[in-house]
Amino acid sequence: MNHIDTVEQLGVTAPEGFTAAGVSAGISATKGKKDVALVVNEGPSFEAAAVFTTNRFAAAPVIWSQQVISDGRVDTVLLNSGGANACTGAQGFQDTHASAEQVANSLGIFAGDVLVCSTGLIGERLPMERLAEGIEDAAAALSPSPASATAAAQAIMTTDTVSKEAGIKLANGVTIGGMAKGAGMLAPGLATMLVVLTTDAPLPAEQLDHALREAVRVSFNRADSDGCMSTNDTVVLMSSGAQDVQVSLDEFTWALSQVCKNLALQLIGDAEGASHDIHVITVNAVTEQDAEEVSRAVARSNLFKAAIFGNDPNWGRILSEVGTTSAAFEPEKVNVTINGVQVCTGGGIGEPREKVQMKNSRKVTVEIDLNMGESGATIWTNDLTHDYVHENSAYSS
Amino acid sequence: MNHIDTVEQLGVTAPEGFTAAGVSAGISATKGKKDVALVVNEGPSFEAAAVFTTNRFAAAPVIWSQQVISDGRVDTVLLNSGGANACTGAQGFQDTHASAEQVANSLGIFAGDVLVCSTGLIGERLPMERLAEGIEDAAAALSPSPASATAAAQAIMTTDTVSKEAGIKLANGVTIGGMAKGAGMLAPGLATMLVVLTTDAPLPAEQLDHALREAVRVSFNRADSDGCMSTNDTVVLMSSGAQDVQVSLDEFTWALSQVCKNLALQLIGDAEGASHDIHVITVNAVTEQDAEEVSRAVARSNLFKAAIFGNDPNWGRILSEVGTTSAAFEPEKVNVTINGVQVCTGGGIGEPREKVQMKNSRKVTVEIDLNMGESGATIWTNDLTHDYVHENSAYSS
Repeated sequence: MNHIDTVEQLGVTAPEGFTAAGVSAGISATKGKKDVALVVNEGPSFEAAAVFTTNRFAAAPVIWSQQVISDGRVDTVLLNSGGANACTGAQGFQDTHASAEQVANSLGIFAGDVLVCSTGLIGERLPMERLAEGIEDAAAALSPSPASATAAAQAIMTTDTVSKEAGIKLANGVTIGGMAKGAGMLAPGLATMLVVLTTDAPLPAEQLDHALREAVRVSFNRADSDGCMSTNDTVVLMSSGAQDVQVSLDEFTWALSQVCKNLALQLIGDAEGASHDIHVITVNAVTEQDAEEVSRAVARSNLFKAAIFGNDPNWGRILSEVGTTSAAFEPEKVNVTINGVQVCTGGGIGEPREKVQMKNSRKVTVEIDLNMGESGATIWTNDLTHDYVHENSAYSS
Repeated sequence: MNHIDTVEQLGVTAPEGFTAAGVSAGISATKGKKDVALVVNEGPSFEAAAVFTTNRFAAAPVIWSQQVISDGRVDTVLLNSGGANACTGAQGFQDTHASAEQVANSLGIFAGDVLVCSTGLIGERLPMERLAEGIEDAAAALSPSPASATAAAQAIMTTDTVSKEAGIKLANGVTIGGMAKGAGMLAPGLATMLVVLTTDAPLPAEQLDHALREAVRVSFNRADSDGCMSTNDTVVLMSSGAQDVQVSLDEFTWALSQVCKNLALQLIGDAEGASHDIHVITVNAVTEQDAEEVSRAVARSNLFKAAIFGNDPNWGRILSEVGTTSAAFEPEKVNVTINGVQVCTGGGIGEPREKVQMKNSRKVTVEIDLNMGESGATIWTNDLTHDYVHENSAYSS
């Protein structure tokens, strides 16, 4: 491997040994929208790792999938949009179980190796007959083609406006592919997202788990669109082991992190109703944890996010959030730079705020310099817009 | 005292021994708006207590006032809108000091007994000449009339649409009066608010401090409009001791709490751009702390607040927030009732959500029953609306 490999638009079938499909089963309220997907590992190995929401109201598919992953093996992932199957009680769990059994029967595998992901409205049962038809159609449509991977990525979209795929090809022949969905409820401890990552690197489940947790920590867990944690977040990584090469875990982790960061930025870039992507960068903190706490506090401020929507470099709303943290800092040492203009120097008035230009760029960069140490962290977020309010006030009714 | 005394619209001059004034000094961007106020304790005693924001970027007037209150004596409170004098460095502190000196000279008192409160944009110096003129005008206009108290309440308004006063007359002759401002940045650990409370109860500073902290805990600290904590929050309570009667601290604390709750609800009722006041009530928790944590998590969810704006009883967004807390609960025991309809029963689907009516009432009541213990707590918040985004994206520019 070498570090000049770059992330490309590669779907879940880009690595050797995977097929996928995405079909329309009439589950989504949008007529004709694809809403059922399968991603199938054809082997030779079936090592896997997954991380889930820490929400204590975990959805039925999450509870099911936590059992599936416990032995480090996943043969197939079934995904649906149009319903989260969360807060649906024992019946919801039976529904997830039944759909896994059906996938298993269709593909000749064991139901306990079928991971299930659902996304959509909480508190409604899934239409099981339609889902069953969707599973049959998807199983019949499985293919290793890039188009099939994209169809799967489309089938998991909810309020996403575009499907999201990313992957990387390494010099040693190993490939990582991935797809993601998530446009609202993007928050820490994952973000409401479903992510399927595939690779042909021959790594055992424990090493995949190590790589996945580190990659998620510096990518999806740094994307915080609206501070809301979902009941369904799942990030799964499957390996077919189809490339018979030596793989360094460190380099694989690095490559996986690049793919995850790319997908996380795609999620932020398509967050519900956003007009700006905001990179809140804290530098010169004593610890990375301090830097992350500061960036996250700012990224979660509705007042700050509304100001950015108004193209208003209102740095007071940044400092007032920094002031709520437990990070090591001294007010009179803090500098804040917005899009290159240091509007706050030494905790007080810096360059005139009128110098800051942000109207014509989607990306806004806020740098908070604590001048205390040498650690840093970035949180990616969005502005708070009329469209966010509109989409989220109209979504379920 | 007796507990059937009710809160009325009584301003800061309602108790014996207080005068007030509110004048226009041209500090506010709104031409002619009153923006400088004085509230003066005429004695015979000058006992006082105050609580402040815990924001580590405390504004210059907060840093000044923390010194003023340290000896338990306040003779006069100077307040201005049109500028927060926060993040203004050493110069900002000198400005606060100078204005306190001027008040002291005008009134023949000691500058160290002048509490100062400022509210408005962070990161700009106050226009000191205009403030000086305002102080002269206000000192000349001091009066014990209700109109003067209301003028003072008007002078501290920023994006408030109405001035806020509340007080109570007790059977033993003691009166409590109060005024508040705060329409955005309403959050825990105060809320961006300035509150001046006055009483003629002859209580020493330590007892006033005890009563004030308890009253604030169950009132202003339970109002959480947008989760943002300000740099300038101040709640001050002054006693003139003008009523020569015996006062029970417990009953005074109760009465003060009623006044503070009334003012807190006025703040929520006038929060920036809100169309619904939401009472998030958690009941049958093991501890009051658990109940407060659950209610606050829900009250801070943008997704939940946007749903309420859309008159959508999206209870999944409530459970998903409950699931992020550390409160003791079991998912299958949790019930959620919105405006009297139990939409979630035992952590799953309850009554049809279509039954919930909320379109025609400003108040929305959400009750979360944890079915675990006997404690409860309510957090008051607002919905997330287009007007909130509009006001907060346009406020400083």
